[in-house]
Amino acid sequence: MERYLKALNQLDMKLSSINYAMSLTSFDAMTAAPKNSVEARATALEGLSTFYFETLVNEDVKNLLNHLNDHSEALTPTDCSKMKILMQDYEQISKIPSEEYAAFEALKARASVAWEEAKEKNDFSIFAPKLEQVINTTKQFIAYRGIGGHPYNTLLDDYEKGLTTEKADAFFDYLRAEIVPLVKAISESDVKIEDDFIKASYPIEEQKAFSKFLMEKVGFRMDSGLLAESVHPFTINLSREDVRITTRYMENDMVSTMASTIHESGHAIYEQNVDSAFGLSIIATGTSMGIHESQSRLFENNFGRSKAFWDYFYEPMQGFFKGKLDHVAKEDFYKALNTSKPSLIRVDADELTYPLHIMVRYEIEKAIIASDIDVYELPKLWNDKYEAYLGIRPKDDGEGILQDVHWSEGLFGYFPSYALGSAYSVQFEKAMKKEVDVDGALSSGDFKPILKWLEKNIHVFGRTKDPDDIIMDATGEAFNPEFYVNYLKEKYRKVYAL
Amino acid sequence: MERYLKALNQLDMKLSSINYAMSLTSFDAMTAAPKNSVEARATALEGLSTFYFETLVNEDVKNLLNHLNDHSEALTPTDCSKMKILMQDYEQISKIPSEEYAAFEALKARASVAWEEAKEKNDFSIFAPKLEQVINTTKQFIAYRGIGGHPYNTLLDDYEKGLTTEKADAFFDYLRAEIVPLVKAISESDVKIEDDFIKASYPIEEQKAFSKFLMEKVGFRMDSGLLAESVHPFTINLSREDVRITTRYMENDMVSTMASTIHESGHAIYEQNVDSAFGLSIIATGTSMGIHESQSRLFENNFGRSKAFWDYFYEPMQGFFKGKLDHVAKEDFYKALNTSKPSLIRVDADELTYPLHIMVRYEIEKAIIASDIDVYELPKLWNDKYEAYLGIRPKDDGEGILQDVHWSEGLFGYFPSYALGSAYSVQFEKAMKKEVDVDGALSSGDFKPILKWLEKNIHVFGRTKDPDDIIMDATGEAFNPEFYVNYLKEKYRKVYAL
Repeated sequence: MERYLKALNQLDMKLSSINYAMSLTSFDAMTAAPKNSVEARATALEGLSTFYFETLVNEDVKNLLNHLNDHSEALTPTDCSKMKILMQDYEQISKIPSEEYAAFEALKARASVAWEEAKEKNDFSIFAPKLEQVINTTKQFIAYRGIGGHPYNTLLDDYEKGLTTEKADAFFDYLRAEIVPLVKAISESDVKIEDDFIKASYPIEEQKAFSKFLMEKVGFRMDSGLLAESVHPFTINLSREDVRITTRYMENDMVSTMASTIHESGHAIYEQNVDSAFGLSIIATGTSMGIHESQSRLFENNFGRSKAFWDYFYEPMQGFFKGKLDHVAKEDFYKALNTSKPSLIRVDADELTYPLHIMVRYEIEKAIIASDIDVYELPKLWNDKYEAYLGIRPKDDGEGILQDVHWSEGLFGYFPSYALGSAYSVQFEKAMKKEVDVDGALSSGDFKPILKWLEKNIHVFGRTKDPDDIIMDATGEAFNPEFYVNYLKEKYRKVYAL
Repeated sequence: MERYLKALNQLDMKLSSINYAMSLTSFDAMTAAPKNSVEARATALEGLSTFYFETLVNEDVKNLLNHLNDHSEALTPTDCSKMKILMQDYEQISKIPSEEYAAFEALKARASVAWEEAKEKNDFSIFAPKLEQVINTTKQFIAYRGIGGHPYNTLLDDYEKGLTTEKADAFFDYLRAEIVPLVKAISESDVKIEDDFIKASYPIEEQKAFSKFLMEKVGFRMDSGLLAESVHPFTINLSREDVRITTRYMENDMVSTMASTIHESGHAIYEQNVDSAFGLSIIATGTSMGIHESQSRLFENNFGRSKAFWDYFYEPMQGFFKGKLDHVAKEDFYKALNTSKPSLIRVDADELTYPLHIMVRYEIEKAIIASDIDVYELPKLWNDKYEAYLGIRPKDDGEGILQDVHWSEGLFGYFPSYALGSAYSVQFEKAMKKEVDVDGALSSGDFKPILKWLEKNIHVFGRTKDPDDIIMDATGEAFNPEFYVNYLKEKYRKVYAL
C-alpha cells in the first residue's frame, strides 16, 4: 500500500505543479504580459497541458486509481478524496484525444487575446472566428465525453457537480416568476434615490488605498496574496498562501471598484482558508464554482451592501476619500448602494437584477450547445434577451455580448453558478446567524467570528466535500432558493417602500 | 526521418514549455509574489523540473538524439543545432539522479527567499545554512558529471563553453597586472571630478519615464517585453516576443538606475533579435553568459558612457528631470559618468574597477569548489579580498557578501562571464566600427545601423553558434583581451589627464 500511496501523492504533486504554472501564466496574461506575447504563451500552454494529460491519462494511473478505489477503506480521508477527485478528473478528460485537449489550451490563449482586442475596439467580428472555434471544440468534447441527458448537462456538471438543465430551468423559472415583477414594481415606483455622488470623481490612488484597507479588514491575509489590476476582475489561486485578486479602477465609479474588491476578496478568503494540511494539491481549492460564488457574493452583497457593514466602514471610507463624502449621510450611502435599475453590464448590476443577467447567458449557452446557431447571430440574440428581461437594449457589442471574458476562455456552463452562488450565500448567512452575531461582527469591523464559521463549515474542506454535502452539513437542509428570493423581496421592498 | 524530426520538435516544444513556466515563475518570484508564496513555489519548481528531467533523460530520447547525430547530414541547420544543444543539455544533467536534480530547484527557491531576507536584515546567518546546502549540492553534481581538470571547469563551461580555470586565470592575471596600477594612479591623481549632482534627488516617477524613453530609444521593442521592478535588476526571456527587464529606482542615485536600465536593455535586445524562425525553442536564446554580457555592457558602457551617446541624450534627459540638470554642462555630466573610484557594490562600480569585483568572486568560487571552506568564513574572505584589490573593506555583509543574488540561485561559475563579456564588448565594438558609423548613430539617436550589425553578427544565431565562433566570425579574430585593456587605459587616462 505504501508504494501506491507514494505514487498517488507523486501524481498529485506533478499535476499540481502544472496547475500552478498554468494559473500563473493566466494571471500574467491578464495583468502584465506584453502585447506580442500571445503566440509563445499559446505554445507553452499547449505543452503544459500535454504534460497534464499524459501524466493523468495512462494505464499506470488507471490501475493505480482502481487499486486505491478497491482498497479505499485503507486510505486516510485525505488520500481517499485525492483518489476520488483524480478519478473524476480522469473521467472528464480521458476520452478526449490528447492532441485535441492540448490544442484547446492554445486556442483559448489566442481567443482571450482576440476577445480583449474586440472589446477594446468594440468590434465583435474580431472575436467571432475564435468564438466559433471554441464553441465547436466544446461541442466536440461533449460528443467525446457526454454524461447523458441534455448535452449542456455535461458542462453544468463540470462547474457544479450534479447540476442539470432540469434543475437549472426550475431554478431560473422560479427566479423569473418572482423577480421580474419586483423589478417592474421598482421601475414604476415614485421613490427616487439620490446616488449622483457615487459617480463623482474619486482619485485612483485613494481607491487603491481604500481597496487594500477593505480587503485586509474583511480577512484577506496580505502576506499570502496580492491585489493587481486587470480589465476583468478575477481571483486566481497558486496555493493557499498565494491567492491573487484583481480589480479595475474607474475614477467615476468608485462603488463598482469597491464592490469588485470585496467580491474577489470573498473568493480569495475561501482559497486562503482551505486546510493547510493539504499542501500544494489538486484538492486544495474550492469545491465548485457555485460554492465559490456564494463566498464572493456573501462578502460583496450580504455583508458589503448591508447597514451593519457600513456602520463600521463608512467613517474610514470618508477618511480615504478626503472630503468627497463629508456631505453624504451614511443612510443615504446605504440606499445608493442598494438602488435597483435595469442595466447592461453584469458586473455592475445591482443585487436584484443580477440573476436576470445570468438568465440571459444561461439560455443562450443552452441554445448554443443544443443547436447550430451562427455565431454572427449571437449579438442579436443577446440584445433581444436583454430587452425581454431587463427592458433595455445594448447599443453596441461592447456593452452587450463582448462584456464577459468567459467564452474566450472556454468557460461554457460556468455562468449559472453565479446565480446559484447568490442563492447559496443567503442560505449560508441564515445558518451562520444561528451561531454568530453577524450584524454585531460587521458593525464592529471584527470579522473573526464570521471567518471562523465559514472556515469550519465551508472553506477548510477544499474539494474533499461536494457542494450538496457542504450545503446540507452547513445549513442543516438541502439547497432551497426560497431564502434567496425572500431576502431580495424583503430588502428591496424596504428600500423602495413597496 | 520525418518521424524522428517530428519527435525532435515535439521534444523541443515540451522542454521549452517547462522553461517558459520556470522562467515566468522566477520572474514572478522576484517582482510580485507575496511573502508566504515560497513553499508552494518550491514544490511547483520541483515538479516542473521533474518533468524537464524525465522528458529529456530517457532511453527514447537518447536513441533519438543518437540516430539524428548519425544522420546529421540529412538535417536542416536548425534541426542540427537543436540536436546538438539537446545532446549537450542531456550530457549536463543525465548523470544526476532525477530526485536530486528536482530537489535542487526547490532548494534554490528557498535559498533565494533566505538571501532576500538576509539582505534586508543585513544578517548573513539567515542565508548561511541554505548557502551551505547549495554549495554542497553543487559539489555533488560536479562529482556526478565533472568534465575533468579543475572541478570548477565544469561550472565555467556551463556558462561559457570552453572556459577553463587556466584560461580564466590568464585573463584575470592580465587584468590584474594592467588595471590595478591604473586604479592606483587614479586614486593618487589630483584631478577631482565634480559629481555631487548625481546624488541629488531625482523623483522616482521621472526616473521611470526616462527609463522607458531610454529603453525604447536604444532598440527595445516595447510590445514584446516590459519593464518591472526588483531588488536586483535582471532580464528574463519567455520568448523572443516577451522579454522582461527589471530595474530598481533610487531617488538619490539616478545614474545607477539609468545604467541598469540600459544594461538590461542590452540583454533584452539580444533576446528580442534571435531568429524569429526558431519559435519557442531551446535554441531561441542567447548562446552564453559571456556573449550575453557583452551585449549588456556594450549598451551600458561603450555606448551609455560615451560622449557621442550623450550628444543626443543629454537634452532629452534634462527635460525629463525638470530643472535638475539645467546647471550641469554635458561635458561635466560625461565626466561624472566616468569617474573611477574603488567601491563596494559591484552593480554600481565604474567601468574600470568593475572587473576587480569579478576577480574577487572568481577567486572565492574557485576556492569554494576546490576546498572545504566553512561558509561562515566566507564573509571575512570576501572582505579581505576587497581590501587587497580595491583598498576598501565592507563594514557589513550587506555591502559585502550579501549583495549578489547569484549564489542563492545556484549560479556558481557565472560571475567570470561578466568580466569576459566586458572584454568581448570592446572587441565587438571595434569590429562594428569598420562597417558602421557608431558615433554618428549614437549622436543622432538612431540605433538602427547598430542594431542591424548586432542582429546580423551576433543576435540572430541564438544558441546555434558557440561563443568562440561568434567572436571569430563577427570580429575576424579569436578573443583578445588587449582591446579591452587598451580601451580602459585610453579612456581613463584621458578622463584623469594621466
